Amino acid sequence: MLLPEPVQRVIEAFSRLPGVGPKTASRLTFHLLRGQSSLAEELAAALGGLHSGTGSCGRCFNITAAGRELCPVCASAERERGLVCVVEEPLDVLALERTGGYQGLYHVLGGALSPIEGVGPDDLRIAELLERVRAGGVQEIIVATNPSMEGDATAMYLQQQLAPLGPRLTRLARGLPMGGDLEYADQGTLLRALAGRQELS
Amino acid sequence: MLLPEPVQRVIEAFSRLPGVGPKTASRLTFHLLRGQSSLAEELAAALGGLHSGTGSCGRCFNITAAGRELCPVCASAERERGLVCVVEEPLDVLALERTGGYQGLYHVLGGALSPIEGVGPDDLRIAELLERVRAGGVQEIIVATNPSMEGDATAMYLQQQLAPLGPRLTRLARGLPMGGDLEYADQGTLLRALAGRQELS
Repeated sequence: MLLPEPVQRVIEAFSRLPGVGPKTASRLTFHLLRGQSSLAEELAAALGGLHSGTGSCGRCFNITAAGRELCPVCASAERERGLVCVVEEPLDVLALERTGGYQGLYHVLGGALSPIEGVGPDDLRIAELLERVRAGGVQEIIVATNPSMEGDATAMYLQQQLAPLGPRLTRLARGLPMGGDLEYADQGTLLRALAGRQELS
Repeated sequence: MLLPEPVQRVIEAFSRLPGVGPKTASRLTFHLLRGQSSLAEELAAALGGLHSGTGSCGRCFNITAAGRELCPVCASAERERGLVCVVEEPLDVLALERTGGYQGLYHVLGGALSPIEGVGPDDLRIAELLERVRAGGVQEIIVATNPSMEGDATAMYLQQQLAPLGPRLTRLARGLPMGGDLEYADQGTLLRALAGRQELS
C-alpha cells in the first residue's frame, strides 16, 4: 500500500460515515494533512467527548447533556405540556425548534417502522409514548414522522394505538413546499396538495 | 442552545472540513450519536494519529509514514530514476499510482502558483525540484499540474526554470476524457482535443 497506515485509517473511518465515499474520505483526510494539526486534533477531541458527554432525555428521548435527567425542552416551564409532537429522530426536533413556531413537548421514537430493515414496534419508543399518554395531561399528539413509506406506516400504527387513549391526533400538513415550483413537484406531492386544498380567505 | 455542548462541538469541527456545510455536519454527527460509540471513537483515534504518524518524503515531499526518510516510491529499487512527475498534491500521486501505468518518481510541489491566494514560487517545493535536477540523473520531467489557471501558470513557470537545466520536459495530454460525451464537453476541452488531434493508425 502506498499510503502510510495512519492516513489509511482516517480514510477508512471517514468512509464509514453516511454519504462519504472513498474519494470524499481521501479528500477530507488530505485536507486535514495539509493544514496544521489543530483541526484534526480538535475534531478528534470533539468526537472523543461525543458519547460520554451526551445522554437521552428520560421523558422524550431527545439528546441531552450527560447527567441531565431531562432535556431543555422537557425541563422548560414555558412549554405547553398538553401538546406532544412525535418525531423519528433528534434531528427532527432540531428542525422543528428552528422554526420557532412550536411550543409543545416532543417524543423521539428513534426511527420508523420498517419490516424490510427489521424495525418493529418494540424497537421504537412507542411503549414509552403510550405510557406518557396514559399518565394523563396530554390533549393533542402531532404525529410528525417523515412523509415516507416507513413514516406513514409508523403514523398509522401510532393512530391505532393512541386512538383508544383519547387525545386529539393530528399530523403535519402535506402539500407544496415553500419556494417550490409546481412544474417540478412530483405526482405524489401534487396529489396531496390537491386533496388537501384550502379555501382562499 | 438546544443542543448539548459536546454535540455542538462535533458539528462545528465537521463544518470546518471542505464541502461540509452545517446541515451535512449535523447529519454526520447525529449518525455517530445514533450508532454505538465505536465509530466515533475509531475516527477520533485515527485523527489523533494522523499528524504524529506521518511525515513527508525527504526527496519528493510525498506523504510517508513518520520516521521514514523516503516514501515507498523513492525507496523502491524498481522505479525509473531518470523520470520525475511533478504534481501539486499527494492526492495526485495516489491518482497516478492507481493507474498502474507510471514507473518513474514524483515531486510534490505542495500547491500551485496563485497570485490571488498569495502563493509564490517560494511557497512551493520548486527550489528543491531544481536542486534534484541539478544533482543529475533526471532525463525527463513530466509536468502534471492540474489543467486549471493556476496549474498552467505553474507549468509555465517550471518550464522557464527547468529548460536551461537540460532535461526533456513534457506535460500530460489534454483532450476528451474517457467515457465523456462530445456533446457535453466544454469549449476549452474541445478546442484542446482538436488542436491535439492524432493520426488514426
